[in-house]
Amino acid sequence: MGKNLLVAQSGGPTSAINASLSGVIEQALKEGSIDTVYGAKHGIVGVLNEDLINLTEAFADPKEIERLYYTPASALGTCRHKLKKLTEDQSEYHTILNTLVKYNIGYFVYIGGNDSMDTVDKLNQFFIANDHKDILAIGVPKTIDNDLVITDHCPGYGSAAKYIGTTLAEIERDTRAYNSKTLTIVEIMGRNAGWLTAASALSRIHGNKGPDFIYLCEVVFDKDKFIEDVKSAFEKSNTVIVAVSEGIKDKTGGYVADDESILGMKKSGNTDAFGHSQLSGACRTLGIYASEKIGCKVRPIELSSVQRCAAHIASATDLAESKQLGTLAVKSLMEGEGNVMITVERVSSKPYEVKYSKAPVSQIANNEKKVPREWINEAGNDITQELMDYMLPLIQGQVPGIYENGIPNYKVLFQ
Amino acid sequence: MGKNLLVAQSGGPTSAINASLSGVIEQALKEGSIDTVYGAKHGIVGVLNEDLINLTEAFADPKEIERLYYTPASALGTCRHKLKKLTEDQSEYHTILNTLVKYNIGYFVYIGGNDSMDTVDKLNQFFIANDHKDILAIGVPKTIDNDLVITDHCPGYGSAAKYIGTTLAEIERDTRAYNSKTLTIVEIMGRNAGWLTAASALSRIHGNKGPDFIYLCEVVFDKDKFIEDVKSAFEKSNTVIVAVSEGIKDKTGGYVADDESILGMKKSGNTDAFGHSQLSGACRTLGIYASEKIGCKVRPIELSSVQRCAAHIASATDLAESKQLGTLAVKSLMEGEGNVMITVERVSSKPYEVKYSKAPVSQIANNEKKVPREWINEAGNDITQELMDYMLPLIQGQVPGIYENGIPNYKVLFQ
Repeated sequence: MGKNLLVAQSGGPTSAINASLSGVIEQALKEGSIDTVYGAKHGIVGVLNEDLINLTEAFADPKEIERLYYTPASALGTCRHKLKKLTEDQSEYHTILNTLVKYNIGYFVYIGGNDSMDTVDKLNQFFIANDHKDILAIGVPKTIDNDLVITDHCPGYGSAAKYIGTTLAEIERDTRAYNSKTLTIVEIMGRNAGWLTAASALSRIHGNKGPDFIYLCEVVFDKDKFIEDVKSAFEKSNTVIVAVSEGIKDKTGGYVADDESILGMKKSGNTDAFGHSQLSGACRTLGIYASEKIGCKVRPIELSSVQRCAAHIASATDLAESKQLGTLAVKSLMEGEGNVMITVERVSSKPYEVKYSKAPVSQIANNEKKVPREWINEAGNDITQELMDYMLPLIQGQVPGIYENGIPNYKVLFQ
Repeated sequence: MGKNLLVAQSGGPTSAINASLSGVIEQALKEGSIDTVYGAKHGIVGVLNEDLINLTEAFADPKEIERLYYTPASALGTCRHKLKKLTEDQSEYHTILNTLVKYNIGYFVYIGGNDSMDTVDKLNQFFIANDHKDILAIGVPKTIDNDLVITDHCPGYGSAAKYIGTTLAEIERDTRAYNSKTLTIVEIMGRNAGWLTAASALSRIHGNKGPDFIYLCEVVFDKDKFIEDVKSAFEKSNTVIVAVSEGIKDKTGGYVADDESILGMKKSGNTDAFGHSQLSGACRTLGIYASEKIGCKVRPIELSSVQRCAAHIASATDLAESKQLGTLAVKSLMEGEGNVMITVERVSSKPYEVKYSKAPVSQIANNEKKVPREWINEAGNDITQELMDYMLPLIQGQVPGIYENGIPNYKVLFQ
């Protein structure tokens, strides 16, 4: 009798995290040494609560695996639960181990970002220390933020980038159709890494102007330089478009979104379980400032969470790679290798070629990869051609999706 | 020697207004009695400024007409310029007539909403009164708001509705992936008519829950009833999603977005050239209120202008009909009939069948069609099946678009 496999998803949803899940399920169902495939609801929380779904049954029909492939967000549900340090409190680890033993789980696949890799690392340490080397945990990368180290890029990023590039091209058509003096400020996700904001430049592919300026959170934001930039652009055109990261910060390190000298009021400074600041509103705060300083009409556009789940415009390249990463995670487990994250290495950009590899999860956990300064122009208000060349292969190819009655029919595992 | 044709676009951009333009150009180029096709930049303002483009030259290659078909927003540019009453000041009318005579224009096609139909009506009156019955102006409908009278529906609406339905399905996947208590408030365009907000219900097509509540601007909004609704939904689920029209108003007739008792501050009340209030923020204002009254986490999502220009998810039905309306406008002019707007009549919904007709522009101008009260449920917080049946045929069919290098390559006539 073989072992069972358990898979879970964690962190912010993406358009590709279910493609990885589809790879895990499809491969696990093929492996003779895996009896049953289970999914934990809401990530590690589902393991803690013994809230599991039998995926072998749920995906008996291969068409449902295909439907899952095209479905955005986390079909198994997600969480933002961080396990305590092993040296602090091991009670949750024991609960998890009990569930795994009870369900005869030999393999645990966690699809997520660097927090999830931290979880994988801690679990493996705990299993070894508690005489359960027979349970292997492995990581599959995921994050639209594209900020995981070692891997060339992250599943989910290419699809979000394709959505952002396309949407910026559409916003540009919309904005430049008017002839009145208007500043459009598009706010794009990214607290500490500007990869998604950089994708706004993809709207220039066909020779269009694209955003007049792009401000990534890697560069200290100077609001008066920003006003100068916008004024200079208004000298050439009545319609000015800028793209900003939600996480742009001023020289004090404070978020521009919360700039009290602009807002004239104190915002509440809630932080979430991981200590990240709950942001929103760089586009609105800057809009107030520009309106005061320039007197132009301002149109703030926050791309919101739609940018991470717009699966109808997913990148075919991204989905295919994401599935492959899930497949390879199962294969690695079958070869007896856990405690790694499957990674993508770029062999070349033109023509685009990648190979897959592995890295110890401990090297991924709690690290982040920002946009290199040399991929941002000297003035700090645009990106370089090198960054365009990096992004371009990741957004190639359209997906058909599964449309029924005019709307994509996404896979729903539970309501 | 024949006459020339002039076409222009006006009002807010849509994903289908260029499909209508492509129909006008394609048909006009076929007509032996039309010499040259011109386009006015930025609507009637381009006629006033003699700012015309030779479209016969610009669209010599039929491939460019196809590219135009898939391009969002107004390729000719748009304006919000309202001509003065004929009894008030005729100076602009004389300027327009001079331009038309100078360019030997016999036919003027104006693609737009009810303000544009008002312009067509006034121009025709002026031409007749000034011995220029030889110039015929005609209207082609356009507006994502779907609020033009007589025509069954408006070009651009079906594509916006498809985007909204798809995006809400994606937001639902994203939102319900979490298990923390969260209220998501999606704000959808529509000042006086809730047709677009109603389209949020299309996310339910495949048996999904969709928004828990839908509040259209046709119904007086009661913020305390709203809180009751949300509380009752939280009893059944941790994730609650509501869709609201930007233009929801309370019993005093004031916009909920501007509710000072919530905002605790006075907003500036700018109005545009047509006296419409410049809105934004019903989702944020309501978010503040719900956060105070319920203490839940709130995620405000404003679909913004992206909803009107997301041509990558245009409705094939909408684009095909929009083009046909442009084609028929030219044919009507060739038959000597102007001063009408081409309309769509629905023959049946199942199977979907339409026929095209005409209505005097004077009957369209300055009127608006709201969602009938009987298509909204009694409680005023959802729509009825009749409205679903009305919308469903309009979003059918996907468009391939013209992708190059991962992003749609849209037609740009001028930067």
